[in-house]
Amino acid sequence: MTQYKIPVLPGDGIGPEIIAEGRKVIDAAGERFGFDVEWIEYPHGADHYLETGELISEETLKELSGYPVIYLGSIGDPRIAPGVLEKGILLTARFYFDEYVNLRPIKLLDGVWTPLKDKTSKDIDFVVVRENTEDFYVGVGGRAKKGASKDLLEVKRTLYSAKFGLDIETDSEEIGYQIGLISKEGTKRVIEYAFDLAENRKKHVSSVDKANVLSDIYGFWREEFNAVSAKHPGVTTDFNFVDAITMWFVKNPEWFDVVVTPNMFGDIITDLGAMIQGGLGLAPGGNINPKGTSMFEPIHGSAPKYKGQNKVNPIATIWAGAMLIEQLGEKEAADTIVNAIQKNILDDKVKTYDMGGKSTTSDVGDDIARIIKGE
Amino acid sequence: MTQYKIPVLPGDGIGPEIIAEGRKVIDAAGERFGFDVEWIEYPHGADHYLETGELISEETLKELSGYPVIYLGSIGDPRIAPGVLEKGILLTARFYFDEYVNLRPIKLLDGVWTPLKDKTSKDIDFVVVRENTEDFYVGVGGRAKKGASKDLLEVKRTLYSAKFGLDIETDSEEIGYQIGLISKEGTKRVIEYAFDLAENRKKHVSSVDKANVLSDIYGFWREEFNAVSAKHPGVTTDFNFVDAITMWFVKNPEWFDVVVTPNMFGDIITDLGAMIQGGLGLAPGGNINPKGTSMFEPIHGSAPKYKGQNKVNPIATIWAGAMLIEQLGEKEAADTIVNAIQKNILDDKVKTYDMGGKSTTSDVGDDIARIIKGE
Ligand SMILES: CC(C)[C@H](C(=O)O)[C@@H](O)C(=O)O
Ligand SMILES: CC(C)[C@H](C(=O)O)[C@@H](O)C(=O)O
Repeated sequence: MTQYKIPVLPGDGIGPEIIAEGRKVIDAAGERFGFDVEWIEYPHGADHYLETGELISEETLKELSGYPVIYLGSIGDPRIAPGVLEKGILLTARFYFDEYVNLRPIKLLDGVWTPLKDKTSKDIDFVVVRENTEDFYVGVGGRAKKGASKDLLEVKRTLYSAKFGLDIETDSEEIGYQIGLISKEGTKRVIEYAFDLAENRKKHVSSVDKANVLSDIYGFWREEFNAVSAKHPGVTTDFNFVDAITMWFVKNPEWFDVVVTPNMFGDIITDLGAMIQGGLGLAPGGNINPKGTSMFEPIHGSAPKYKGQNKVNPIATIWAGAMLIEQLGEKEAADTIVNAIQKNILDDKVKTYDMGGKSTTSDVGDDIARIIKGE
Repeated sequence: MTQYKIPVLPGDGIGPEIIAEGRKVIDAAGERFGFDVEWIEYPHGADHYLETGELISEETLKELSGYPVIYLGSIGDPRIAPGVLEKGILLTARFYFDEYVNLRPIKLLDGVWTPLKDKTSKDIDFVVVRENTEDFYVGVGGRAKKGASKDLLEVKRTLYSAKFGLDIETDSEEIGYQIGLISKEGTKRVIEYAFDLAENRKKHVSSVDKANVLSDIYGFWREEFNAVSAKHPGVTTDFNFVDAITMWFVKNPEWFDVVVTPNMFGDIITDLGAMIQGGLGLAPGGNINPKGTSMFEPIHGSAPKYKGQNKVNPIATIWAGAMLIEQLGEKEAADTIVNAIQKNILDDKVKTYDMGGKSTTSDVGDDIARIIKGE
């Protein structure tokens, strides 16, 4: 019997409820496929922060980096200002473990309602590979008064409008600014991941950027994309401006196979992707460092208003659990979980309110575990 | 008879064809409502650039700034690197004229196909107010080698990851970076425009940002939003992270009345908005400086592959023409144009290929002009 130790951070709001179902299903898969999981619980999240002042300490991160995978619920609490927990825990972990791939299957399962007309599971089946450690997520920015900072004088000198003697600072008391950056290595590795994925799929990679306006950062992205592309002559490619790709996701999702995108645009288009695959209740994500620690989570938030009601859909979390055990090498068990989710949906009996049903969170977890065990 | 002089830049690709129809329709409205337009043509675009090396000169801009409105076709040509014409003409003009509002009605006309299930013209009828002169559009960025730049050392010191002794530059030969900034005055004025608009609509303003991650720039945005909001106690508000709002556009467009957004996120969500209102062929936009020179355009590109075929849909351009004459104070004529577009669509006879028809670009312009003149 293979033994796995898996750290689990249930987090805030509905996190503990959905994670409980995810664990249940992985345990069921373990029974059937001959592995056993020891779950190691971590308390990080809003309550822990309010009690102890700790978001997540370097010591904890170091400890967690000893494991290949982590199972994450959801982070976020209305008592705490937006960004504090998300940056202090979720983004910190993504950066610390250098999880440079955010992997988002956009797959409409059979029997799931999509807001799009005339689209079925055959049309919506692609993967977004989102860069996950750079770009505008590096957390560099600030404020300045006019002329207060050398940096900003620099900024001002190169300003577009400066060309014409305009000065957008003239009437400004204050300015807020933000800096994004991408590195050659950081860009290359995520694009390579996307091409490797495409080699085992339909051999097409779509790049997302806004190189016509944010030319410095995304012109650089395009160069790296072209360099990696040249090494994969069997893979076709296209370039999409981020504004345009939101249209194609809605109009022609069948065009896509693997989509690779810088971090911030990836954040935006994967939420849109979640919606076309049936909503946040059904959208799993993986934060992957292929040679280090990876972290799997539903992409939805902590939905505080549903906390403790045993009401929300656990499928996103269960699906994220399938991705997690696939990362551990348990491919057959992972496929079995996804198939069990599909069967639960097609059976159309045990489903939560968002899918038009009346079942509880734990009913759905029970049903999927039952299907896996073949009871 | 009122006389207007209106500069017109047909631009590239299909630009001249669609602008011809827009002029035809405005001329027809003039006949009916007693105004006359003298059109002043400007050659700027790809051909002019390739022939003369001029994108758009300061002299031309100065001359154009003497007019209240400009009619724009479309800019962009495959012979020229992405961004050169867009930045050199379109964005330059937006900045030069300080057109701080990009106004985008997201309105599904009756009889128009939308990709969304169960949504009708009653559900899709809101306005996006996109900031149009700041944010990541200021064109500030660059490249650097490790340690080559004081600016970047600064960046590095404050890097997220630096907290843990990680150094994302360590293995990087090179970095591409981009800076966005918003000013207090620049943010305030566009948010005020949105609230003023909402006062005359359904009295609701939705703000878009990503303050949980790009906290420096968008935390600043939120503060300004709250300050303006406090002066409009009769207007309700909500905050949306940009990733989430792409979901609501698709799932619950009926929630929105006026949406106000920073520049780059506005670029993205207005394209998504165009798609839910039936596609780019139907989406007009205005670049507005309420006290200066405003510029109206279809939001689609120059579609080079359709150039000269008299095939594409001119409705976006015609609708932009209605916005243009409304800006001149010809409200009744503007409403009449929009109603004529609606009638053309409901008649369901004269329509271009994208709407399932076989008519030409000029057939559609003729039909709308005919409806206006009541022939
Ligand atoms: C919660 C937030 C910080 C996060 C992000 O922006 O990456 C989320 O939206 C996601 O996509 O995982
Ligand atoms: C052509 C491009 C520079 C422009 C923009 O990004 O603003 C366009 O997408 C728009 O929305 O008007």
